[in-house]
Amino acid sequence: MSEPVFTLPRGMKDIEPSEMARRLWLNDRILEALRRYGFQVVEPTAIENLETLEAKSGPDIKDEIYWFKDKAGRDLGLRFDLTVGMTRMVANRYDLPEPIKLCAISGMWRYDEPQFARYRHFYQWDAEIYGTVEQEADGEAIAVGMDILENVGLKKYQVLINNRKLIEGFLSEIGVASSELREATIRVIDKLHKIPKQEIASELGKIGLTDNVVNEILEFTSIRGKPSEVLGEVETKRLKDATALEGYDELTNLAEAIEAFGKSGKCIYDLSIVRGIGYYDGIVFEAYDEGGEDIGSIFGGGRYDKLCSIYGKRDVPATGVAGGIERLMISLERASIFPRLSQSPKVFVAAVNDAVRRKTMEIVQFLRNSGVPADFDLKRRALAKQLEYADSIAIPFAIIVGQREIEKGIVKLRDMTKRKEIEVKLEEVPRKILL
Amino acid sequence: MSEPVFTLPRGMKDIEPSEMARRLWLNDRILEALRRYGFQVVEPTAIENLETLEAKSGPDIKDEIYWFKDKAGRDLGLRFDLTVGMTRMVANRYDLPEPIKLCAISGMWRYDEPQFARYRHFYQWDAEIYGTVEQEADGEAIAVGMDILENVGLKKYQVLINNRKLIEGFLSEIGVASSELREATIRVIDKLHKIPKQEIASELGKIGLTDNVVNEILEFTSIRGKPSEVLGEVETKRLKDATALEGYDELTNLAEAIEAFGKSGKCIYDLSIVRGIGYYDGIVFEAYDEGGEDIGSIFGGGRYDKLCSIYGKRDVPATGVAGGIERLMISLERASIFPRLSQSPKVFVAAVNDAVRRKTMEIVQFLRNSGVPADFDLKRRALAKQLEYADSIAIPFAIIVGQREIEKGIVKLRDMTKRKEIEVKLEEVPRKILL
Repeated sequence: MSEPVFTLPRGMKDIEPSEMARRLWLNDRILEALRRYGFQVVEPTAIENLETLEAKSGPDIKDEIYWFKDKAGRDLGLRFDLTVGMTRMVANRYDLPEPIKLCAISGMWRYDEPQFARYRHFYQWDAEIYGTVEQEADGEAIAVGMDILENVGLKKYQVLINNRKLIEGFLSEIGVASSELREATIRVIDKLHKIPKQEIASELGKIGLTDNVVNEILEFTSIRGKPSEVLGEVETKRLKDATALEGYDELTNLAEAIEAFGKSGKCIYDLSIVRGIGYYDGIVFEAYDEGGEDIGSIFGGGRYDKLCSIYGKRDVPATGVAGGIERLMISLERASIFPRLSQSPKVFVAAVNDAVRRKTMEIVQFLRNSGVPADFDLKRRALAKQLEYADSIAIPFAIIVGQREIEKGIVKLRDMTKRKEIEVKLEEVPRKILL
Repeated sequence: MSEPVFTLPRGMKDIEPSEMARRLWLNDRILEALRRYGFQVVEPTAIENLETLEAKSGPDIKDEIYWFKDKAGRDLGLRFDLTVGMTRMVANRYDLPEPIKLCAISGMWRYDEPQFARYRHFYQWDAEIYGTVEQEADGEAIAVGMDILENVGLKKYQVLINNRKLIEGFLSEIGVASSELREATIRVIDKLHKIPKQEIASELGKIGLTDNVVNEILEFTSIRGKPSEVLGEVETKRLKDATALEGYDELTNLAEAIEAFGKSGKCIYDLSIVRGIGYYDGIVFEAYDEGGEDIGSIFGGGRYDKLCSIYGKRDVPATGVAGGIERLMISLERASIFPRLSQSPKVFVAAVNDAVRRKTMEIVQFLRNSGVPADFDLKRRALAKQLEYADSIAIPFAIIVGQREIEKGIVKLRDMTKRKEIEVKLEEVPRKILL
């Protein structure tokens, strides 16, 4: 008989117990930070109408996502981020007092070519603030991202911050007149951290910019430093474009907010940060783990005041931040930050022989009822085999139940790592194990 | 300009903050119970190869699930339960010590006609034990299901238990000779709780059973009561079929296990419980919430010793239990069991005027750093509007920051429900609010 072995689809994976232990630990800490900032957890539907997904990203998104026709012939797609769903959720809600602060930690799918640290299914945490144009909100998006990293123990990172209005206004001012050309220019600038400057210059030339303009762009986007320094340097440029000045003012306000939040230390203003994605239209930012640049930004986000009006009758300003769980896990693993985590039960109750099996089960159940994760042998094996099993799944304590102990009204509690054994009353076991 | 409003696909829904608060509460309690029994959390992939899904349920499953071709032309499907994925995960793992106890709380999709309490996307908790044939394992599946209900506060329920071998052996003995006919008979018996006995009798007649046989079946499947009573009554039937006797012995062992676990009180042996699903082949059970019979079983499960060999080279006995989260939520809502849950922050820090905004932000951040969910006005509104907002999202406390209080080194802490105000040092606020 042929024995079929069923494989996983390309780019998909199961989450095993040891990985899940780390994810549960991480989720708890991320949620705790999000809650401190007043974000409320939601989950937008995983299956959207395809047109909902296309509305944000254009029809080309079809090539990058999972989409299909349902049995009624409707085009559906699996969500590729959480922003679309959350924005759709608020876009027609006139009943919610503003600002609306939502967050989610959920999975999503993209039909990418699988590569290092990238699967076709992955998780993100995402926090969005709807209903305010003020830079305090952008500051909160940045601050909550930073506190998520601090809360999971990742302390060596930088947040690089810029403003799309400043860049777009600057481009207008130096003669990049059409919005299409500015858009194309920004997509090239977006590669500044990935490919050499000469190539950037040549790409900018190819889309039709003069050498002079290209040089001005390369000079402007190389400005980088503490917020006050960068703001000072930009001031010397004496920009006159109204959009650029708006962006400058926003960066000034943001610097104050970051300062008030006590978050200045790890924030850098970097005029090369543009976040290529089309819908950003104000403050933008990306955070990088020190030494983890190969895995990309550890969180990123910005302001997208126009997206809500695409999804509903309501025009709501918005800003937000999101980070990939898998990337975060890699950073934490590299820095050996994860504590020792185990999903194994705390105690294994072993029976000396079949005669005490029922007593063993009663003890297990007493422990479980006391809140102690406990297990016993479901295979009716001999004592040595039972303890071997307990050891093999790293259960830290064992209780050995024998006739003599039952008569004496005590149990033998063995510390499996220290190989030490004490006799205690059963009632004392939960305290001994849980402390 | 036409203003598009993007809707959700039929049968799909978003999870809003108030519902999510209940789900998070529920998940915590379910996980806590699962952990006490030593189950380890995993998540199988959401997208499977279609053939993996068909292997459990046959090609007809295509009509009931979401499936599609990916861009490489492969047939994929969205998981419709968690058992398939978990079973596939262990079916080729020779490295895991047995028994293997896995659990999951995750979403799944079915292309059903949407109806009361049924969406096309829903969540289940699921616990599976691989690697043992003993009835202690079936007893654990039942006991953990019961402790999940107890842990979420649902105390009025019954678990109805039977054994497929007993039923199949009994059918052989009374002359239902072919396995196909027995299978068809079991599918009719499965409807005993849903349609009147006369209709069951007529359906059994239609598939070819004689009146005599039909009557014997109706009599046998009406046996119901305490485990010891039912076992006694079955004994009087003096069954000789080897499969039936095996089933009888398993029910005897299970009764002992349930007794040892202290779970006899709410367990009923009911010979009409067969769980139509084809792969069950031993103990089967279903739990019903008192007065909630219209929403179906609140958990169910049983033994499926043959499924692993479909998914891998390894033949592993298995038993398990699963329950729907949405059904559980309805039961808890009907019984008014959910506590008052809110995702709103605990304190709103209001600024008397613009001059103290920065101080307000520093206070907010101090509170957040102390672990207190805190918020302030992101819209720069006047004081009255700020407090109106705090009230509208039910924030229980407010701090009002004014110049005078800053100078005195204290803050005004207002209890928003009692409308009472006290003056305290900022450092004392976390203790006052969190206790």
